[in-house]
Amino acid sequence: MNKRRSVFGRLQRTSKEKWKKEEFSEIEYEPVPVKDLLTEMKDISELIIDLGYSAVLFNNREMAEEVKYLEVRMDKLNYDIRMMAMMAARTKENAEQLAGILQVAEAAESISNAAGDIVSLLDEEKTGPILPEILKHADEKLFRIQVSDSSKACEKRIGDLKVESETGMRIIAIRRDDCWIYNPQSDTNLKANDWLISRGNDDGYQELSKFLQGKLEALE
Amino acid sequence: MNKRRSVFGRLQRTSKEKWKKEEFSEIEYEPVPVKDLLTEMKDISELIIDLGYSAVLFNNREMAEEVKYLEVRMDKLNYDIRMMAMMAARTKENAEQLAGILQVAEAAESISNAAGDIVSLLDEEKTGPILPEILKHADEKLFRIQVSDSSKACEKRIGDLKVESETGMRIIAIRRDDCWIYNPQSDTNLKANDWLISRGNDDGYQELSKFLQGKLEALE
Repeated sequence: MNKRRSVFGRLQRTSKEKWKKEEFSEIEYEPVPVKDLLTEMKDISELIIDLGYSAVLFNNREMAEEVKYLEVRMDKLNYDIRMMAMMAARTKENAEQLAGILQVAEAAESISNAAGDIVSLLDEEKTGPILPEILKHADEKLFRIQVSDSSKACEKRIGDLKVESETGMRIIAIRRDDCWIYNPQSDTNLKANDWLISRGNDDGYQELSKFLQGKLEALE
Repeated sequence: MNKRRSVFGRLQRTSKEKWKKEEFSEIEYEPVPVKDLLTEMKDISELIIDLGYSAVLFNNREMAEEVKYLEVRMDKLNYDIRMMAMMAARTKENAEQLAGILQVAEAAESISNAAGDIVSLLDEEKTGPILPEILKHADEKLFRIQVSDSSKACEKRIGDLKVESETGMRIIAIRRDDCWIYNPQSDTNLKANDWLISRGNDDGYQELSKFLQGKLEALE
């Protein structure tokens, strides 16, 4: 839990080329349970695709930077998990199970590389008008909504508002002034003027959007 | 729309090695708009990861077969989209945009290959008890719930029940007798004894589960 929150759910400035810092920092091996490493890798593999498609849809370079950062982070996690697996393996049965875990870890890394390929389009300025148009028609849609200062959502925790269970909208990221919170957690507060990037269907979007604009007193 | 529904939202028998039929069928080129192809590829890329992790979590070979089938289908879609892009490109600007689309298509295919790698663990019987344990602790969880014949959900359409916008639970697949419906659509009816594979958080699970067991009259 604590481990994951060090990357997700935390207000952070997406400095330009932040991924480079991670890329060229020395790899320090610290023992973290395989379970925690793989859990973080799975969570990143799911978030990074949403972020990647969102970055292209909203032509947003900061989200693209975050994708690159997560891609580099995934490399490190994959290195760590290999180390841990090798240190942990004692018997043949044991090693077989760990080999399975490494295979899932490898898949999670491939997914993050694919997301990195998607956002590299922004650098190459090849997104054009067609691609965002296509992404708008997908099954699950991505939306951008701003929190009005007249909304009851201000200064409330996402978990207490039950945003996901009341509207089906999953908040992928929050932009606050010039900072971002990626994969906000249930104890993250919403604030006036926050921009939310979220994923869901039209019904959920309508409801959440009314609530965040202050046109609805509560989500229910 | 119609294109996508030919794969998703339809009751189907997951015959053993159904993917082989697709793999070795002759590729027939039929013109489909690039937009429809990429939309389907994006939808598959998101569903296939959930299905892949679910197959391992529930140790379910039929879901694994579906992942393999979707992986093969993705290959074909990628072939089709390349064909369409080449036929459509007329000017340099045009070709540049289409190149961007092909890059996203390529990424979607890599994602489906990664999901295929995850489920190949089932064939190799390397999933063991550790992996499902880990997947249970991820951020968004996967659940299996059965529809009781006393539930008001019976014979109702998913869209009318507003499952996603009322509970935040996204139904990934439905098992009915020995058939499956993958990525059910809003007009899919639920029936008594259906098993739902869905993704969401604990709150949403509690509510949906009570409703499907007939302990709650309605979702709200």
